Amino acid sequence: MQFANSLITLTTDFGCDSPYVASMKAAIFAVHDEARVIDVTHSIPPQDIARGALVLAEVTPQFPPGTLHVAVIDPGVGTARAIVYAEIGRQRYVCPDNGLLSRLAAKNEPTRIRAVANPTYWHHPVSATFHGRDVMAPVAAHLSRGLAPEHLGPAQSDLVRIAWPEAHILPGNIVGEVESVDSFGNLVTNISAEQLAGVPTEETTRIVCGEHETFGIFRTYDDQPAMTLIALIGSSGKLELALVGDSAAAMLGEGVGSEVSIVW
Amino acid sequence: MQFANSLITLTTDFGCDSPYVASMKAAIFAVHDEARVIDVTHSIPPQDIARGALVLAEVTPQFPPGTLHVAVIDPGVGTARAIVYAEIGRQRYVCPDNGLLSRLAAKNEPTRIRAVANPTYWHHPVSATFHGRDVMAPVAAHLSRGLAPEHLGPAQSDLVRIAWPEAHILPGNIVGEVESVDSFGNLVTNISAEQLAGVPTEETTRIVCGEHETFGIFRTYDDQPAMTLIALIGSSGKLELALVGDSAAAMLGEGVGSEVSIVW
Amino acid sequence: MQFANSLITLTTDFGCDSPYVASMKAAIFAVHDEARVIDVTHSIPPQDIARGALVLAEVTPQFPPGTLHVAVIDPGVGTARAIVYAEIGRQRYVCPDNGLLSRLAAKNEPTRIRAVANPTYWHHPVSATFHGRDVMAPVAAHLSRGLAPEHLGPAQSDLVRIAWPEAHILPGNIVGEVESVDSFGNLVTNISAEQLAGVPTEETTRIVCGEHETFGIFRTYDDQPAMTLIALIGSSGKLELALVGDSAAAMLGEGVGSEVSIVW
Repeated sequence: MQFANSLITLTTDFGCDSPYVASMKAAIFAVHDEARVIDVTHSIPPQDIARGALVLAEVTPQFPPGTLHVAVIDPGVGTARAIVYAEIGRQRYVCPDNGLLSRLAAKNEPTRIRAVANPTYWHHPVSATFHGRDVMAPVAAHLSRGLAPEHLGPAQSDLVRIAWPEAHILPGNIVGEVESVDSFGNLVTNISAEQLAGVPTEETTRIVCGEHETFGIFRTYDDQPAMTLIALIGSSGKLELALVGDSAAAMLGEGVGSEVSIVW
Repeated sequence: MQFANSLITLTTDFGCDSPYVASMKAAIFAVHDEARVIDVTHSIPPQDIARGALVLAEVTPQFPPGTLHVAVIDPGVGTARAIVYAEIGRQRYVCPDNGLLSRLAAKNEPTRIRAVANPTYWHHPVSATFHGRDVMAPVAAHLSRGLAPEHLGPAQSDLVRIAWPEAHILPGNIVGEVESVDSFGNLVTNISAEQLAGVPTEETTRIVCGEHETFGIFRTYDDQPAMTLIALIGSSGKLELALVGDSAAAMLGEGVGSEVSIVW
Repeated sequence: MQFANSLITLTTDFGCDSPYVASMKAAIFAVHDEARVIDVTHSIPPQDIARGALVLAEVTPQFPPGTLHVAVIDPGVGTARAIVYAEIGRQRYVCPDNGLLSRLAAKNEPTRIRAVANPTYWHHPVSATFHGRDVMAPVAAHLSRGLAPEHLGPAQSDLVRIAWPEAHILPGNIVGEVESVDSFGNLVTNISAEQLAGVPTEETTRIVCGEHETFGIFRTYDDQPAMTLIALIGSSGKLELALVGDSAAAMLGEGVGSEVSIVW
């Protein structure tokens, strides 16, 4: 892995435009004035570790090798939950060890994990309620300046892993669910392009979500007339349900957790 | 035009704080690690090309010469709609050729237009649904590194143009409409300071919006008591209706498309 | 104070993701292409100077020495209200002289104040309604390039100060109020850790907010079962009321200005 990279990304549940994010940036610049900080999102629903894990898995692998990703969805802040440093693929992560890296680690085993335990690189006094600012931000800043990860704390053999709903693949039938809803109201499922490899894209294939159905798997949002419900493979490589020119989530009344089945 | 500029701005309809924006930034940094990325806004209403064209025209000309502006309001993503590179004034643009540059081009004819057609500078595999990440972001990053635009694709003679409502100027009477509403609730019209050049600012001039009226054209938001409806020339050089200390849009129940007339 | 710092932060009431913010950034880069601009927040409620003053006091002192903080909550834009440059602690500020620096200045007397009166460093023509873009942004950019503050305008002996509610400390009893609500719905009071120094943290201490009460002062958000109302010292060193795993503001129906009393 190449470590000469001053990029640090932030993913939190602090809320869009929260001054808490600016406090983390201040803590980073206080240690490493040349760092470059990029927001992934701060709109993870409060304390929703599963959603944070999903966004990290979809967005962070695309950054240049060695980028440091700090994720603060941390309902257990100040308690005995650990903070970890991990290298996964060509990326580096600093976050609470609460499952946030589960989805990344499921695709790609971590090649190095260290506990973040050495207070030398923290901001003091350390508050009991904001380790994003007082521990994770300064640690990431030190790493981006070149600190070797072995100084952070002892090696650790694994990460906390959380499960998430997987699609069920049967002959002629796949049952999955909506995993996220994007800002266009597209219903993004947990059914991947790989899982759909043998499924015909013709109109003989029926996709059902709640009381709604559509036939065939299309290529673009514009392949059918306005207000038509269509299924397609979205940009994250997963089956989506979209309403041409409008919000499928709003019009169908469906959302995260809604069952989606494919029959052919 | 001076091209030694590593600034890239982003204007999209992805929604405030969307992880899709972070994916575009990752795609930029993957090509040009030294790029500097600035958000114009990601709150363009979904697929609202007219609103995107307006924001681009108001904000982007103020950036340093040679800045690259990437705009992704792209209802036709993945279809036959083209992607273009254009130079307008001292700025550079990469966006779908769907009218997004209409308002800029109406003020200032483009001096160079190229189709973005050469896949050499794209991120592969190219998804059918996210050309912002897979085509426009990497192309902008290559340009900001110094790639000559002629490598992008063939020269093109014009851009797709869309119309928008223009104010009607009559003797003693101008009829326009609300073109946008800002976050303070000010109703910004399509009536420009130039069009108002001969209109008296005294209280003999009457401004009407729906069932509401106000007299005279003021200079600042603070020229009348709180909760007074006033007309003034706003910071984008257009007539605005404002409610002193509150939201005109909320209190008047008016918004984009509401007719505004001036009589004197 | 060390001035070799290209960081400029922005705090405004323009609304999250407003294109007006991008206009300020364009104005900064037009003067100083190497500036680095960080958003503190743009979600200050419109024209809420008191809230702006609070956020500036909590976030800006953490930045590297010499960072320039531009704050635009400016209901009097275009009127006779002044614009100031001030040095407070190791930070530098450019903002309307309307009380925005009151809370910072109460903790730490300004060491230098200049009126921003010399139009040489402004963007012309200066609009009557957007001095953030036309005056404050370019002035900050010039300062970050090394302009000596004495060129901005005459020295000034003091700043406009506004008052804010202070907690009342009595023997066995403190009465304060909710000063802000964060994005988790935590009710942050104006009662500081210093003011609580002699107060027992045991359950003999009773904290009351409206019709709700809780006993004892805890250390973390996770010290009690889900949906329990707890009091703790938050990351800004103030007493907070939090609902474990949920929003105290939403569940209690309390907000800014609600009385909070402590009895022991």
